[in-house]
Amino acid sequence: MPAARSGIKVGVVGATGMVGRELLAFLEKSRFPVGELLPFSSGKQRKSVRFKGRGLLAPTIDEKRLSECDLVFFVSADEVSRDLAPGLSASGVWVIDDSSAFRLDPKVPLIIPEVNASALSPSQRLIAGPNCTLTGLAVAGYPLHKAFGVAEVRMASYQSVSGAGRSALEELLGQLKASSPAALRRGQAPVLDARKLRARALPAPIAFNVIPQVGSFDGQGFSAEENKVAAELRKIWRAPDIKISVTAVRVPVLRGHSLSAWITLWRPATTAAASEVLAHAPGLALDNNGGYPTPLSCAGRSGVFAGRLRAGTSDRELCLWIVSDNLLKGAAQNSVQIAQELLDRGWLRRDTS
Amino acid sequence: MPAARSGIKVGVVGATGMVGRELLAFLEKSRFPVGELLPFSSGKQRKSVRFKGRGLLAPTIDEKRLSECDLVFFVSADEVSRDLAPGLSASGVWVIDDSSAFRLDPKVPLIIPEVNASALSPSQRLIAGPNCTLTGLAVAGYPLHKAFGVAEVRMASYQSVSGAGRSALEELLGQLKASSPAALRRGQAPVLDARKLRARALPAPIAFNVIPQVGSFDGQGFSAEENKVAAELRKIWRAPDIKISVTAVRVPVLRGHSLSAWITLWRPATTAAASEVLAHAPGLALDNNGGYPTPLSCAGRSGVFAGRLRAGTSDRELCLWIVSDNLLKGAAQNSVQIAQELLDRGWLRRDTS
Repeated sequence: MPAARSGIKVGVVGATGMVGRELLAFLEKSRFPVGELLPFSSGKQRKSVRFKGRGLLAPTIDEKRLSECDLVFFVSADEVSRDLAPGLSASGVWVIDDSSAFRLDPKVPLIIPEVNASALSPSQRLIAGPNCTLTGLAVAGYPLHKAFGVAEVRMASYQSVSGAGRSALEELLGQLKASSPAALRRGQAPVLDARKLRARALPAPIAFNVIPQVGSFDGQGFSAEENKVAAELRKIWRAPDIKISVTAVRVPVLRGHSLSAWITLWRPATTAAASEVLAHAPGLALDNNGGYPTPLSCAGRSGVFAGRLRAGTSDRELCLWIVSDNLLKGAAQNSVQIAQELLDRGWLRRDTS
Repeated sequence: MPAARSGIKVGVVGATGMVGRELLAFLEKSRFPVGELLPFSSGKQRKSVRFKGRGLLAPTIDEKRLSECDLVFFVSADEVSRDLAPGLSASGVWVIDDSSAFRLDPKVPLIIPEVNASALSPSQRLIAGPNCTLTGLAVAGYPLHKAFGVAEVRMASYQSVSGAGRSALEELLGQLKASSPAALRRGQAPVLDARKLRARALPAPIAFNVIPQVGSFDGQGFSAEENKVAAELRKIWRAPDIKISVTAVRVPVLRGHSLSAWITLWRPATTAAASEVLAHAPGLALDNNGGYPTPLSCAGRSGVFAGRLRAGTSDRELCLWIVSDNLLKGAAQNSVQIAQELLDRGWLRRDTS
């Protein structure tokens, strides 16, 4: 019996993490036919998760049971993917990896289905999903790239704390509790004592603050996140020569990454022409009526949202404001979309079935 | 007896507002010789303020008493300045106006002392201070403009809520209280219900959010703040042809505006050469050792702070991260610096004295 009928046997490595739980919730709501679900905790302790109304035990990783799956999602640390994903995919299991371990490997397709599903191949069963900060730009900018040619991108990010994991979120909530001024002192805006706010998960206190550092800096002063965005965008758009400059900044938002982008084109484009192109862009909801998305208004929603389309410094440049939920389109949703694409192509079956 | 000896008679219109209180605190710490201080509330109710350890009544505006001052600071609404400032300055009183009422008036000098004190004139007693968002860029970018020529500026802002006034700050604190999730539900990042957070002072909820709107939008989709920054920078730098594109965004920070700037030069400049120029820039503290300022680390501190100097999309482009306290260098400090400049030039004396 074909797998598409009986349902797909799905493993999830990192199921108890923040993206893992979003992935299970998204899978549950999607039309993807999960036959059996095998959740694994990537930590040293077994935990439990919920799926379709049932509590499921998520034991520590069991390679043998993973190798019996049709498809395994990795939503865990780079090291875990690096250890397990190549062997699993070589043995015939489809692997969709949300870590950054293989994204820039030339043999591994780096996929955002709305943009480059054509880079999937039936013979390459290890597939990577992109960095969550890049996703909004990749989806919103690609139709402009196809229509007018993108020569340069400059982008400042407003990245939510959930992008740094659960400990960072707990840190924000703890700092807010410790520092929230009940009222304004003598009518003045309070000056908080940053030294009293302990920062461990993030490089500085994030409550009532913004931090222009996401990842460590290289010798030229670029952060790891900024380098990832540039390299992954070039790969996904198949545009190795595009000039990209990014400032990656963490802001005290729970979920949802926002981007202020300047997109310089090869050919001039009016905002009306660009708006027409973006109105039909797959996976993108453009507000072209004077409104704009915010992380609060997009949290928990799938897809990419954009607004404030306007002219930049010349008739070859557009400005755009882009928001997407980093845990959904930036991670869980994109992974499930890739799986659905594999299924629709008829590839998602065990060789042994 | 010269005024500089007996002290200057100083009026403050809007003394009980947020910037007004910062102005009094900054004046108190400065070497500016206040002889007598006349604080006025620009509202309909008299209130009190503190200055040099004493409580002072701030009555409603009294034009006659204002006309007896040597110098009047306006830190209130545009309409108040528009009503009173021209008459006062025509009668011989020096007026330093922090509102936007006269900034783009060709007859009125728009002054950041580190940048264009030379635009002051003994015959023009009405002087404007600039928009608080622009100040950091104007101070940090001007030395680069002088050394290499600035052709284009792109800038995304991370503006604190105090820039929108006390009611906006109270709104942020109220929303945080109403929405702060005590902990993460079932290990997932919470999705807050934005409809439950009432926004009045700002166009959307600001707790756990960022809002890409500061002021109202014009027909081309630019916000009032974005247009102010562009027009005022061109005037202050005396660079009418510079291309400027801004995305102005409000973030849940109490005080301190941050900027991610791309500065495109006429002549190529290495980051080492730019760093050397910026290290000697008046009013600027550059971290050229891999660190960076944040709004929390700069709150309550005077001056402009920058870091993360690095290459942009070409050898003619630099990226810079800039932070300044919008209530201090962005407002109160800048106004007092202008007054000190007038005093140092020997201009700050009554004609009748």
